[in-house]
Order: sequence, then C-alpha cells, then structure tokens
Amino acid sequence: MKLTVKEIATYLNGTVIGDDQAVITHPGKIEQASEGAITFLSNLKYESYIYETKAAAVLVNEDFKATKAIHTTLIKVKDVYSSITKFLQFYEQSVHPAQGISTVSVIHPSVQLGKQITIGDFTSINKEVSIDDNCRIYPQVFIGVGVTIGKNVTIHPGVKIYHNCKIGDNCIIQANAVIGSDGFGFAPQPDGSYKKIPQVGIVVLEDNVEIGANTVIDRATMGQTIIKKGTKLDNLIQIAHNVTIGENTVIAAQTGIAGSTRIGNQCQIGGQAGFAGHIEVADKVKVQAQSGVAASIEEAGSKVYGYPAISYQDYLRAYALFRQLPKLEKRIRQLEKNKK
Amino acid sequence: MKLTVKEIATYLNGTVIGDDQAVITHPGKIEQASEGAITFLSNLKYESYIYETKAAAVLVNEDFKATKAIHTTLIKVKDVYSSITKFLQFYEQSVHPAQGISTVSVIHPSVQLGKQITIGDFTSINKEVSIDDNCRIYPQVFIGVGVTIGKNVTIHPGVKIYHNCKIGDNCIIQANAVIGSDGFGFAPQPDGSYKKIPQVGIVVLEDNVEIGANTVIDRATMGQTIIKKGTKLDNLIQIAHNVTIGENTVIAAQTGIAGSTRIGNQCQIGGQAGFAGHIEVADKVKVQAQSGVAASIEEAGSKVYGYPAISYQDYLRAYALFRQLPKLEKRIRQLEKNKK
Amino acid sequence: MKLTVKEIATYLNGTVIGDDQAVITHPGKIEQASEGAITFLSNLKYESYIYETKAAAVLVNEDFKATKAIHTTLIKVKDVYSSITKFLQFYEQSVHPAQGISTVSVIHPSVQLGKQITIGDFTSINKEVSIDDNCRIYPQVFIGVGVTIGKNVTIHPGVKIYHNCKIGDNCIIQANAVIGSDGFGFAPQPDGSYKKIPQVGIVVLEDNVEIGANTVIDRATMGQTIIKKGTKLDNLIQIAHNVTIGENTVIAAQTGIAGSTRIGNQCQIGGQAGFAGHIEVADKVKVQAQSGVAASIEEAGSKVYGYPAISYQDYLRAYALFRQLPKLEKRIRQLEKNKK
Repeated sequence: MKLTVKEIATYLNGTVIGDDQAVITHPGKIEQASEGAITFLSNLKYESYIYETKAAAVLVNEDFKATKAIHTTLIKVKDVYSSITKFLQFYEQSVHPAQGISTVSVIHPSVQLGKQITIGDFTSINKEVSIDDNCRIYPQVFIGVGVTIGKNVTIHPGVKIYHNCKIGDNCIIQANAVIGSDGFGFAPQPDGSYKKIPQVGIVVLEDNVEIGANTVIDRATMGQTIIKKGTKLDNLIQIAHNVTIGENTVIAAQTGIAGSTRIGNQCQIGGQAGFAGHIEVADKVKVQAQSGVAASIEEAGSKVYGYPAISYQDYLRAYALFRQLPKLEKRIRQLEKNKK
Repeated sequence: MKLTVKEIATYLNGTVIGDDQAVITHPGKIEQASEGAITFLSNLKYESYIYETKAAAVLVNEDFKATKAIHTTLIKVKDVYSSITKFLQFYEQSVHPAQGISTVSVIHPSVQLGKQITIGDFTSINKEVSIDDNCRIYPQVFIGVGVTIGKNVTIHPGVKIYHNCKIGDNCIIQANAVIGSDGFGFAPQPDGSYKKIPQVGIVVLEDNVEIGANTVIDRATMGQTIIKKGTKLDNLIQIAHNVTIGENTVIAAQTGIAGSTRIGNQCQIGGQAGFAGHIEVADKVKVQAQSGVAASIEEAGSKVYGYPAISYQDYLRAYALFRQLPKLEKRIRQLEKNKK
Repeated sequence: MKLTVKEIATYLNGTVIGDDQAVITHPGKIEQASEGAITFLSNLKYESYIYETKAAAVLVNEDFKATKAIHTTLIKVKDVYSSITKFLQFYEQSVHPAQGISTVSVIHPSVQLGKQITIGDFTSINKEVSIDDNCRIYPQVFIGVGVTIGKNVTIHPGVKIYHNCKIGDNCIIQANAVIGSDGFGFAPQPDGSYKKIPQVGIVVLEDNVEIGANTVIDRATMGQTIIKKGTKLDNLIQIAHNVTIGENTVIAAQTGIAGSTRIGNQCQIGGQAGFAGHIEVADKVKVQAQSGVAASIEEAGSKVYGYPAISYQDYLRAYALFRQLPKLEKRIRQLEKNKK
C-alpha cells in the first residue's frame, strides 16, 4: 500500500493537521511505529507517545488537544476506533491478490463456481468440486474430487483438501494446512507388520471455522471428523480420525487430539496439550498448555492441568510440594532420627 | 462418486430389495449415515440401526430377515465383509485423479519413468530422478535431483522430497510432508554466532513405509537417516538427522526424535513423545504419549512413561502419590507435632 | 552427481592410488559407506575402517601409509579436512537446480529482481516484491504482496511468505515453512462466538536466520514479529504473533512460543518446549526439552527444566524423589505405626 495522508483522510472523512502529502505504507503501533506507518491515539493514558512517535500520521479524535509540540501529522476523525477499523479493512483488501481466475490454475470442467471467485496461480481443483460465492483461493492450493466449499471462504496458499471433504461458509484456512489426510489406522498382522485400514470417511468444517497454518485434520475411517461452527484452531495442530470438536471452542498451537475423541462446546485448550483417543470432554472445559488429558472430563467448566491432567488447583498444590520434595524427605529423615 | 444402487448391486453380485435407482455418493456408518450413503449390517447386535438409518442403501447378508419395517434399500450379498471391502476399493479408485502425466507438470528429460505412472498438475521432477511402475504422484509435489522412488508409491499433494533421497516400494507419503530437509547442525563460533554444517547425507524410506501429513524427516549430516520397512509415522512428526527407526514401528502424531537416535523394531510410540539425541531404544518398547525419553532403553518390550521417562508402572505409582502430596505433607506435619 | 575418481582427484589436486575410473555419486561415512560413496580418513583412530569400507574412494592425507591390504581407491591430498570441505561445497552445487527464472513461474511485472536470481517452477511472486542479488527460490513457493528479500537467501520448495514480511540477507528457509500467517487473535462475543481480530503487522527475519521445515511464524497483530540476526529455528516450531527472539538463539524442533513473548540473545532451547505468552526470557538461558516456561526468566544464563519449568538442578533433585514417592510414603507410614 502506498497512499498519501490526504487520500486516507478523505476516505475516513477526517481533517489533516500537518503534511497531507506524507506517504503511508502500513499500520503500526504508536510506541514502535516506523517510517511510513499510520497509527492511532484514543486513550489519553498513552498521550506521551504521540510526542515521540516516528509514525507518519496518527488518527486522533476531533477533540484531541496537544499539550506539547507534535512532529507527526494528525488526522482528526469523529471516532478513532471506527476509523481505524475502516482503515484496516481497506488495508487488508490492498494486500490480497486481485479477483479473478488465474490462467495458470487447473479447474476440472465439472467444477461448479459461484460468483466473485478468486483462484490463484498453480491451484488444482478436481472433478465434482463446488465452490460457492465470494471465495478467495490462493495459489498452490489442491482441492480433491468432490469437495464442497461454502460462501466467503478464504483458503491460503498451499492448503491441501482431500476428496469429498466439506467446508462451511466463512471458513478461513491458513497456509499449508492439510484437511482430509488419511487417518492413522493399521491392523497388526501375525508377522508383526501392519496393514493399512482404508480411510473412507471425510472431514466436515462447519461455518465460521478457522484452521491455522500447517495444521492437519485427518478424514474419518468411516463417517466424519467434524469441527463444529465457530471453532478456531491455531497452527500445527493434529486432529485425528473421527474426532468431533464442538462449537466455539478455541485450541492453541501444537495440540493433538487422538482418534474418536469428542471435545465439547466453548472449551479453551492451551498449546501443546494432548488428548487420548476415545474420550469425551464436556463443554466449557479449560485445559492448561502441555496437559495430557488421559480420561474423559464429565464436568462442564472444569479446569485441568498436568500429565496426566488433574484439577488445575490440585496440580498447582501438588507441584508446589513436588518442588519441596528434598525438604520433605529431610523432615522425614529427621523424624526417623528422633525416633531412635 | 455418483452411482445407482443398481449399478453397485451389479458390481457386487447382489440382489436389490427396494429402490434400485437411489443414488449413492459415499460410504457411511449405519448409525450416522447421511443422505446418499451406503452402509452395511453384519453383526445382528446392531440390527436396530437398520430400521432407523438414513443411508440410501445397506449391504446385508443373503439370509438377513427384517423383523420390522425397513425404510432404506437393501442389497443382499453372499458375504457382507468381502462385499464392503470390494466396494471400498472401488470407491477409493473413484476419488483418485485419472492416470497419466499432467501437461502442466515439469519433468526433466533425464527422468526415468516406469509404467502406469500418474503425475499431477504443477509437480516438479528434477534431473536424474527415477520412478518405478505404478506410482501415483499428486499435484504440487517437488522431487529433487537424483531421488529414486520404488514401485506402487503414492505421494500426496504438496510433498517435498529433497535431492538424492530414496523411497522404497509401496510407500505412502501424506500431503505436505517434507523428506530430506537439512538437519539442524550448526557449529558455534567464538563471537557467539553459528555456522551451518553442510548436510550432505540422505533419507532412506525402506519398503511399505507410511509418512503422515506435515511430518518432517531431515537428511543425515553425512550418511543416512533411515526409516526401515513397514514402519508407519503419523502426522507432524519430527525425525532429526541420522536417526534410524527399525522395522514395523508405529509412531503417533507430533512425536520428535533428536539426532542420531536409534529406535528398535516393532516399537509403539504414543503422540507428542520426545527422544533425546544419540540414544538407543530396544525392540518392542512401548512409550506412553508425551513421555520424554532421555536415556537409552536397553530392555526389549519395556513400557515407559514420564518426563523424563521411567517404567510405566513406577510412573503411575509415583504420580498417584504426587497427587496426594498435600496429604503426605500434612501427615509429616502431624508427626512433627506429636513429637513435641 | 556422477563423477569419476579421476575427475574428483583433479579437482582436489590429489593423487589416485587405485581405480581412477570408479564412479562417485555421493559422500558417505567411512563405516557405513555404500557403493558409489566417497569418504575420508583423517584421525588414525579410525584407521581400521579403511580396510573394510565399501566406499568407492577415500580421501587420505599425503603421508597416510596403509598397514594392511586396501580394497578401495585412495585419493591422497595435502589436507583431508580442507579437501572434504571443498568437495562438499562442490557436491552441494551439483544438487541445486540450474540458475535462472523458470518459464512456468508467475512474477508480477512490478517485482524488482537483483542479479543472479533462481526462481523455480510454479512459484508465484506478487506485486511490489523485491528480491536482492544471488537468491535461490525453489519451486512452488508463494511470496505475497510487498515482501522484501535480501541477498543470498535460499527459499526451499513450498514455502509460503505472506504479504509485507521482510527477509534479511543470507537467510535459509526450509520446505513448507510458513512466514506471516495470521496471528491467533479472536475477541469473545456475548453469544459465546469469537470475532477475528485483524492481523495487520508483519514478520521480520533479520540477517543469517534459518527457519526449519514446516515451521510457522505468525505475523504481528500490529507491529512486528521479529527473529533477530543469526538465530536458527528447527522444524515444526510455532512462533505466535508479536514474539521477539533475540540474536544467535537456537531453538530445537516442535517448540512453541505464545504471543508477545520475548526471548533473549544466545539462548539454547530444547525440542517440544513451550513458552507462555507475554513473558520475557533473559540472554543465554538454557531450556531443557519439553519444559513449560510459564513465567519470565530474569537471570541471564539460567538453566531450567520441568512443567512448569524451575531450575534444572532443582527439577532433577525433585524428580529423583518423585520416583521414590512410594518409598517415602512407606517411611511415613512406618513412623505413624511406631508412634502408636
């Protein structure tokens, strides 16, 4: 993005105090802003930053009155928060590829495309796929046979979606995520080797789901691996075959959930947590980062920690004493001595 | 896939009871089946599902006799299990890309291709590569200089195989896995910086190995990183340089194995486990999920757990008491009180 | 690579003793070398290997004198170490794609390219990108709008760099890594759903940084996620939004660092470690693998271990007693018995 302060002020119905020809290239934080940044000041608690910032321009409310000399350009607007939101949406548009179907993508003739679709370079879309209106599919994406994609979906570069998976409306899938890879299912043979069990189910992402970069969601052995509506998965997460994750649950990076486990609605799961297979976790459960959930959690709203996970408070109390084990052992030794 | 019940029944030598024009799009589980699903009933323990299923058709044995009204279509076959297997193989074929070499792939003239090879769109195959018969390589795959690939290998979209690595017969590599990236080797310099140590070895996958999505296997510094025959790696696993993993070992998702470590044959390793570098793990060892194996395990068949890992039983016993540490401390306090 | 011993000897100014027409395809370790390998012997402690090696040729110092019969070909050189280094550099060149811009890449007309640039097949480079001299960009790479890339950068296949990120000189990014994906930021709504917070910052990799395969570095919400000069990240690492990592820090595979955390210079962080958000870690801190760093570490040079992490020595001492908890409990029981 390269715009003058004047152009941005016009777009935001603001008034410029200072150099309206200064060039803006990106948004920034007022205390860290570098050359070309536009930033904002709303809470006067942070007023001191405006006298030192290196930003090219700062959005302020109409009633802002400087109490010292200012070296940046001000754009006065009615409401800083709604202006910054409007600006950021505009900025985000500027960094997306132009709309349209790349001439160096491959789209099978049987594919059904809605309106206002963007398909990037080197993307491969296979037979019987359908993609609804307003989807933006970046370069180097693979969409397997029979996949269906809802409205307003964004699929970042390098995402691979295997055959027959279903992606709901408004989903966002970050780069290099994999949806619908084979579940890890092998039947042990008498000679010690393993035979692959066909994985013929699918993955369903309901509406408003976000999937992080390099996250993997395996297809069901049969049936569906389901991520319910509104749920957000961070990067590098592993979701095994036949897992169900409820609505509006958030899961931080590098967590792994083993096969057939069911996670409830509105859970909050920290990073690098692990869940055993074939267990059930109630709604609104909070799992501390790195915990190992080895058994079902039946009580909604529970908070767990540890390896294997127990109640959060119990873990903290036990761990505090774990740290003191050398002292505890000394006290036992002292008691034994006294006894003699 | 879109087939009528009649077409499937003909393929399976079955008899249709009901609507032979119903359309089948995918296999499903009898208790969860959605519209368009074909499912099966063999064990009569689950008979009740057949009266409620939403599946378009159900495979049953010839001698099946309904005891209530049935709202789905039946396909009666001699043996349900062999019919479902036959159907699933047929189904799997239907979702693969058609055989052949994509006109929008790049294949160096020096590449040696066997018979019946599929190469997908936007795949790049570099000089001196050889690929044996019946391999299926999906779109957007990178195969570096000098790589050799055996017979009947499947390489899913986005896989990257660096130069000179060797892939055995019947291997399957899931999407976006990386084979042969540089090992993490840096020599500390006097000024505190690090100098890259050239990583000039390779990765060898022996026959019948499966590699999960987004898993990474680093090339050896010199020599080979080896995954021996029949071993199965799940998703998002890290295998460092110069590691050797034995035959028919299974490793669950997100496990990491540090440099030069050797894992035995027929081991079973849970998810998110970690192994220190330069250690040896005997055959048939079982490692509990999230364990941290910090030292060699010499006894075949050992089962370990913990951080760092100790015997499985010892860990469970110690952890049971860890949870009771507040009570233990109270008992010590009580003894101290009594003493006075 | 396919060269005769004679060709290599000429290149290294060495003298051949044996078959100078033997074909060399790769470097190997003397004790494991397979057919076609070239290896070396410098330290005479390993002399015995030279009589058994299967290598096609072995580099030795001019003054080497065999004490038994030798079945391989020798190349005598002035200094084995400098010769092997020279050979390895030559070998590494041989496995790279030829220099030049692939005709099946897409490069926006506004892109600024330096001298001696290699751009691989199916790579997509978007508007306003600049790439400085001597960069090698492999196939299937995505470079978003406005990205800047310094000199001598290597970007391996399948890497995705989102818009406006900055890559310094001499950086190496391994395959399928993702730079600049959206941070995991969502505002909870009254109805239990989450609303995406725009992520409009960038990622900055300073000079001499290496990023491992399938590692993910999220862009800042606003401002910058920064990896400072000389820092090396292994594979499958998660760096969240607004994190800062200092200079010459090394981080092993599968570690995760939550949002806004700052890691110091010259730290050494083991694999699968986790860091909470919004904490600060001093310089030269060592973190044991799998540790969970839940709070800031203020003392430079600290060494920590555990979950949550405490001093390394304290953890080891406490864990030694954790393992003995059943015995400790027995001693307490004995004391209680005696009391009666």
